Amino acid sequence: FDLFEKMKDHEQVVFCNDPETGLKAIIAIHDTTLGPALGGTRMRQYETMEDALEDALRLSKGMTYKCAAADVDFGGGKAVIIGDPLKDKTPELFRAYGQFIETLNGRFYTGTDMGTVLDDFVHAYKETNCIAGLPEEYGGGGETSIPTALGVLYSIQAVAKTLWGHEDLSGKKFAIQGLGKVGFKTAEHLLQAGADLYVTDVDPCIVHVLTEKAEEMGRIAVSVSSDDIYGVEADMFVPCAIGGIINDQTIDQLKVQAIVGAANNQLLHESHAEKLKQKGILYAPDYIVNGGGLIQVADELYGPNRKRVLAKTEAIYRSLLEVFSQSDALHVTTVEAANHICEKRMDARKHRNSFFSPRKRNKWDVRL
Amino acid sequence: FDLFEKMKDHEQVVFCNDPETGLKAIIAIHDTTLGPALGGTRMRQYETMEDALEDALRLSKGMTYKCAAADVDFGGGKAVIIGDPLKDKTPELFRAYGQFIETLNGRFYTGTDMGTVLDDFVHAYKETNCIAGLPEEYGGGGETSIPTALGVLYSIQAVAKTLWGHEDLSGKKFAIQGLGKVGFKTAEHLLQAGADLYVTDVDPCIVHVLTEKAEEMGRIAVSVSSDDIYGVEADMFVPCAIGGIINDQTIDQLKVQAIVGAANNQLLHESHAEKLKQKGILYAPDYIVNGGGLIQVADELYGPNRKRVLAKTEAIYRSLLEVFSQSDALHVTTVEAANHICEKRMDARKHRNSFFSPRKRNKWDVRL
Repeated sequence: FDLFEKMKDHEQVVFCNDPETGLKAIIAIHDTTLGPALGGTRMRQYETMEDALEDALRLSKGMTYKCAAADVDFGGGKAVIIGDPLKDKTPELFRAYGQFIETLNGRFYTGTDMGTVLDDFVHAYKETNCIAGLPEEYGGGGETSIPTALGVLYSIQAVAKTLWGHEDLSGKKFAIQGLGKVGFKTAEHLLQAGADLYVTDVDPCIVHVLTEKAEEMGRIAVSVSSDDIYGVEADMFVPCAIGGIINDQTIDQLKVQAIVGAANNQLLHESHAEKLKQKGILYAPDYIVNGGGLIQVADELYGPNRKRVLAKTEAIYRSLLEVFSQSDALHVTTVEAANHICEKRMDARKHRNSFFSPRKRNKWDVRL
Repeated sequence: FDLFEKMKDHEQVVFCNDPETGLKAIIAIHDTTLGPALGGTRMRQYETMEDALEDALRLSKGMTYKCAAADVDFGGGKAVIIGDPLKDKTPELFRAYGQFIETLNGRFYTGTDMGTVLDDFVHAYKETNCIAGLPEEYGGGGETSIPTALGVLYSIQAVAKTLWGHEDLSGKKFAIQGLGKVGFKTAEHLLQAGADLYVTDVDPCIVHVLTEKAEEMGRIAVSVSSDDIYGVEADMFVPCAIGGIINDQTIDQLKVQAIVGAANNQLLHESHAEKLKQKGILYAPDYIVNGGGLIQVADELYGPNRKRVLAKTEAIYRSLLEVFSQSDALHVTTVEAANHICEKRMDARKHRNSFFSPRKRNKWDVRL
């Protein structure tokens, strides 16, 4: 086992141990060219330490690209706490975790992810300022599904512009997979824009609420089974649930012109981007589409302001247009184009970071 | 491979990676109850990452006890850089290392150890203030062999006091293993105190220099082979070279009343302390005896002052007397007594650390 082999793209991996509270955490910092590493903290009962490490390494690298694409002044990081979110959480554990975050001297900011909730970080916040994504009553931005869903709408508009030359969605059909917080809000936006929907969700109640809503608005939302969502006659597929759903099996079923959704890691393998390209399906890279939450969290350090966040979310529209035009110009997949844009952005920043100034204003210290 | 299993006594382990300079470093922080972790940085071409990690974990724990025994306000840490000290050193590598030390926000101070020299840390010092053990021309204390050798002399005096009721060493015989920087200076102190010596060293020249010196002073220094040093008719054995030299084979040969030397990790296993006790040989725990260098390095943050350092080194005398009396009172080995004293000191400090004060003076920030 050679950790340096596994972390050869990463800057730093920090193992934190506090037997008294039972805290076992791994903080992975991938790249800090753009600013302090930002990434959520996942809590899960990992089978092995190596699984936990793997998750932290993989996700922190993803965050570097997501931050670069959203053009927030943060680098990529991620943390995992090994434990059962239902049994092992205590205020003291999150305080200890906060102390460890503080040891990193502002190099790592974190907030919720799978297995953790905003209130957990209220405890950590007592020990460190490096928390992003606090509840509104603590001066944070609160729930991130609003900017995330808005980002998905902007993404759909960017795709429409690219495919059809205009952003008018009236009469268009969308297949939405998952009506969770983000999926539901996205569906509402689309209905408002005059679109019709195919929807699927594991919860029949939420599907019912949406179809009623559509009817009220004079639109149509057709409930389909989880298997059928891939094959419907829609203009775009909007995955807002689990990852890995773009794979050899589902690509063959798709009849849409584009895929634009909020789910993380939609492609089972990166090679599926090439397959979509060959089939003429425009793929909007997920990490750009779902960047709205990140934009809010990063913005939070300037003090809460929902209007400003929503305005910043428009960056997603511009980013996607750039990705599509680069993908066309360079004959590469949209994923390759997006990665390339992110890497170029980091290279450019390297030069800016070398511009000497005797007292650097630290733009991430606004709450310190 | 479960790192949390290996580090269950440790607070934090930090993996640092910088492909551009080739830096691969592991910083282990064992315990910071007494203050920021202090420990040297070792550079070595470890066979595997796990060997490097093992070294860092083991040595950082040792530093916690060494710092507690010397009563310096530091906790235990240690770092390893994976690389060949003869080929892989560059100023840029030590600068990158300095940047990583700085990320720990003053929680880790370091300096030389095997494979690194004072000048390497001049480069690291450009990127972080958390360097202890700088060359004198940079405001550091420089060479640590002077206080270390003085600490060995104080230790020998404490042992004499315990064995014979007085500190007079005239006419006593000492078997010194190793005449390196510390061993040679210790030998000089002993000759000055009127003692006679048996000495051994791999370098015949240095042995010759010493025997000449003894003659000049009207004392006797007998050169013996490396194998014979264990069996000579001396009052004390003074190991000042490699570790692991107190083992089943050598204990059987020893004719001395006590073992007091500067070498690290003298006992092959901790069980050999019990064996020495049974044989009636008084063992002065190595990590207390050789604490003089640490005392100087820890003192350096107050600005260089050799006189003050040498005065502080007397703490070693008092510590050893306490260890011997506890060992007697509790019927435990001197190693157990020493560890127990260190642990009690840390427990007491835990309470002091919980005394709230709105603005804590940070006693380790003197150079910041």
